Amino acid sequence: MREVLAEAAFQLFLERGFEQTTVDDIVARAGVGRRSFFRYFPSKEDAVFPDHERCLAEMTAFLEMRGSDASLDPVNTVCDAARLVTRMYAANPEFSVQRYRLTREVPGLRTYELSVVRRYERTLAGFLRRRYADAQGGDAPEGALRAEVIAAGVVAAHNNGLRSWLRSGGHGDADASVDHALALVRTVWGRGGESERAVTTVDGAEGSSADEVIVMVAPRGAPLWKVVQQIESALGEEA
Amino acid sequence: MREVLAEAAFQLFLERGFEQTTVDDIVARAGVGRRSFFRYFPSKEDAVFPDHERCLAEMTAFLEMRGSDASLDPVNTVCDAARLVTRMYAANPEFSVQRYRLTREVPGLRTYELSVVRRYERTLAGFLRRRYADAQGGDAPEGALRAEVIAAGVVAAHNNGLRSWLRSGGHGDADASVDHALALVRTVWGRGGESERAVTTVDGAEGSSADEVIVMVAPRGAPLWKVVQQIESALGEEA
Repeated sequence: MREVLAEAAFQLFLERGFEQTTVDDIVARAGVGRRSFFRYFPSKEDAVFPDHERCLAEMTAFLEMRGSDASLDPVNTVCDAARLVTRMYAANPEFSVQRYRLTREVPGLRTYELSVVRRYERTLAGFLRRRYADAQGGDAPEGALRAEVIAAGVVAAHNNGLRSWLRSGGHGDADASVDHALALVRTVWGRGGESERAVTTVDGAEGSSADEVIVMVAPRGAPLWKVVQQIESALGEEA
Repeated sequence: MREVLAEAAFQLFLERGFEQTTVDDIVARAGVGRRSFFRYFPSKEDAVFPDHERCLAEMTAFLEMRGSDASLDPVNTVCDAARLVTRMYAANPEFSVQRYRLTREVPGLRTYELSVVRRYERTLAGFLRRRYADAQGGDAPEGALRAEVIAAGVVAAHNNGLRSWLRSGGHGDADASVDHALALVRTVWGRGGESERAVTTVDGAEGSSADEVIVMVAPRGAPLWKVVQQIESALGEEA
């Protein structure tokens, strides 16, 4: 029933436009009563994005399951959590691409989408904030700042990769496009590289737990994110 | 007239609540006709944030003026641009704090604010995208990705600093609170440090324009952002 309603709604939005379609039109097309619509969707906008609530719940559960495992790099974990969103879009490329085009044309849908994106960002930031609070033992404001900056970066990178895929018409590999974009965030903010090698705590930089060292030489005045990229690529070559 | 309307609107929102106040109530309080309201504000929401359009225009002009000066670190420039928003809030602490509390209670205002924040973010990202396209000579998708990730980080950091100040009741120094938060983004993404020392191009890391070098030793597996922070603090001590 929920899917039938969402499909009827979306077909009508494409045929007549979002603003020109009423809830009455949707329930007439789906062959159900008006109250059925509101049992499943609080608003017309929600019918355009029928899977975000489920995906947000999945993301929350995914992060809760990993919340207490200090061996996982929290930045990798939030990148993996963001991929749940990619997967939702990639499950139905044609629908996702049509919706992307529709959303760009309807200000009300763009606003709705902004709110949803913000909820994902807050979910990721909340996880990072708890992890950094645990690891840093008290410096909550600094942990919160870092959590919010990283979560914003993960969301921006994810959406950049997803948008590339949507603009290509949903051809190709959505995961690969998103992974490529997320790599920039993982390089800069993650523990260093794909694997979890030689890291025992977030504070590893100050401890003596890792017996290997990086020696880095860079021209003074080099952009620091580039220095990081060079360290990362040097580590990658060795591994 | 515009200010009189905005003030009347805001007083009524505080007294009766946002949803319970009509445009008719506002124009009655301000002693003007209904059409005057819509001459200045497209909607009730706009009257709550009367200065964002002006601030967005200022930010755009600020960035355009600096767009062609390659000696400026683009990350520092977008941080400076974000401070225009801080300044707008700090110009009227009492109003800003009351509005912050009101916005947290009214979903429609939160949505409106999200849209405004998104417009600032797009403005900053657009500037960075153009700068990176010029500097990299063609790798537009990579430049756009970096621009979007950095702009998102600047906005997240700025809003973290601004929120701290608002939560403190608007006491203290808003600029200092925002600067502290932005320092994290500048450290990671900027050219390295407060000043523009020894940097001639964005691609300085590969060139030979800087004759000083950084030598960095860090435990393997250290979080790379921490390595960067250490490089930064070492440079700071020397300077």
